[in-house]
Amino acid sequence: MTSPQILESARALVEPSLRQSIEQLDPHIAPLALYHFGWVDEHGKPTAGGGGKGIRSALAVLSAKAAGAPAEVGIPGAVAVELVHNFSLLHDDIIDGDAERRHRPTVWAVFSQGEAIIVGDALHALAFDVLLSGATEAGGAASGAAQAAARLASATAAMIAGQSRDMAFNERMDVTPEQCLAMEADKTGALLGYASSVGAVLAGADVEVIAGLEGYGSKLGLAFQAADDLLGIWGDPAVTGKPVGNDLRERKKSFPVVVALSQQSAASEELAGILSQDATLSEAAITRATQLVEQAGGKEFTSAVAHEYLNQALACMQAAPIAASAVEELTNLARFVVARDH
Amino acid sequence: MTSPQILESARALVEPSLRQSIEQLDPHIAPLALYHFGWVDEHGKPTAGGGGKGIRSALAVLSAKAAGAPAEVGIPGAVAVELVHNFSLLHDDIIDGDAERRHRPTVWAVFSQGEAIIVGDALHALAFDVLLSGATEAGGAASGAAQAAARLASATAAMIAGQSRDMAFNERMDVTPEQCLAMEADKTGALLGYASSVGAVLAGADVEVIAGLEGYGSKLGLAFQAADDLLGIWGDPAVTGKPVGNDLRERKKSFPVVVALSQQSAASEELAGILSQDATLSEAAITRATQLVEQAGGKEFTSAVAHEYLNQALACMQAAPIAASAVEELTNLARFVVARDH
Repeated sequence: MTSPQILESARALVEPSLRQSIEQLDPHIAPLALYHFGWVDEHGKPTAGGGGKGIRSALAVLSAKAAGAPAEVGIPGAVAVELVHNFSLLHDDIIDGDAERRHRPTVWAVFSQGEAIIVGDALHALAFDVLLSGATEAGGAASGAAQAAARLASATAAMIAGQSRDMAFNERMDVTPEQCLAMEADKTGALLGYASSVGAVLAGADVEVIAGLEGYGSKLGLAFQAADDLLGIWGDPAVTGKPVGNDLRERKKSFPVVVALSQQSAASEELAGILSQDATLSEAAITRATQLVEQAGGKEFTSAVAHEYLNQALACMQAAPIAASAVEELTNLARFVVARDH
Repeated sequence: MTSPQILESARALVEPSLRQSIEQLDPHIAPLALYHFGWVDEHGKPTAGGGGKGIRSALAVLSAKAAGAPAEVGIPGAVAVELVHNFSLLHDDIIDGDAERRHRPTVWAVFSQGEAIIVGDALHALAFDVLLSGATEAGGAASGAAQAAARLASATAAMIAGQSRDMAFNERMDVTPEQCLAMEADKTGALLGYASSVGAVLAGADVEVIAGLEGYGSKLGLAFQAADDLLGIWGDPAVTGKPVGNDLRERKKSFPVVVALSQQSAASEELAGILSQDATLSEAAITRATQLVEQAGGKEFTSAVAHEYLNQALACMQAAPIAASAVEELTNLARFVVARDH
């Protein structure tokens, strides 16, 4: 299957369960969550499309197949990882003051900050509920479900720690490329590592299979984040759904910026001068900063890093005893993720 | 033991584990969490005291004893429930715009809203991590731990649903006393029901023991919330650490207000007029509203409801096969919670 087919087939498998879980939330919360996912408008009226790219869902169901189990085994893991990912988007949009996502106003912008906080919290708790609800019955959860929940707690904690460091970096001009990559390994790598192995965990797979898939996902997360960082500066606003130069406007110390700032060059110094200004950056300053990040080598090096991590991801997976059909699909999906334009 | 002794002994048992878990958070998050708990000042310098009342901790370790297990068995449950309770306080303070808690500036007021959101999220994930971390090892979690985590997910989801309805009530003048109690059963009862049974769950107790303790805790939660609602209007600011008339200023539809508004009387109508004003309420308006809630019977009825739920809580517990020494301590603690002044 091609990657769009893989994503579409995973969506068909996961979306009904995901929507069903969300629709069972409190009637004050569910409409806002459905709005966030793009399934209804701000008045609760159904819309076409929505649901995001679904990369994490696809990885979760593929990881069940990689362990030789039916794709369906990965569904609760896929639902849980989408819920955690989207809780973090809801809260990030408040923290970053982003009023738009996926070409639509964000939840805090349409409703309120307080409601966006609560909806995020609700999705966070729901993720654990989805994995563990079997365990409230006498007899307890299957050990796979308990392990999947335990791993979700670790991955979510790492993601939050990464987000916190990412915020702290915005105030600093001396972040090293190594510190930036370590932050991105937590912020993005941990949850992608989780997504890429949770199906195998739920299937009760051997530890080498789980470790290989988790390694694949966490390296892919770094490649994914590098691609994201490139789009955050050079992405086409019409495709990404975010304003042009958004990351520079918010003075994010994303990897291309950190690499550029770490050089000893005239471009690097001029860039540091622009980003140290107290005032809001003008559009001209953002355009100039964009050129300077490229001149100082930030674009080229980030692109090289994306491909290096992609290769490491594929190597992790190929070293593990994984079903051949899954290897092909995971390879296609990884290449697609790094080459995407939004 | 008297209630202060019970609380102190539970604190001695639980606080070291709670602090240790928090101190292992990311170095950007831990100091803010330690500040929230009152263990360090805003510069990270250790302070005397802190940690809150610790009622939930005490219930959790008592519930292990109630099941005939050592109190220590309840510790992970106590830590988890304190983490969830405090994550909700961190987020509530942002949502309500409360700049003070426990006589100190709140985290969002000292640091930033974004950091307060992230710290709350970190405590939320950590709660599940604490209960489930054993399950990442091969072999999986003990079934008690998985069940404790599953119940935590349900209780947390209920708490969030209750908070969301509580927010929605602020905009409404037609909330019925029954709707208010149903909201409080979710907002406060669910997590107290969890705290009061998690030790027994971790001890692998019989279902009647767990159900009796959970019933005790959820009824106690309603009594606790009624006491809280009374303090929110008539509490002494010097003792509660919150401004006088705080709940009326924020136009919270707490139970005394809802009861007063539901009467057919002159006092009720005058109260509705004040609370429907568009403008910020003056101190004189808050003083008058306070008198009117009392005149319309809101204070007396809430106090009666608190005692009724206290009796129901004790009846739930007495009907379950619970160790006699624990019955005495749970009874003392329940009476203390309802009679507290902060």
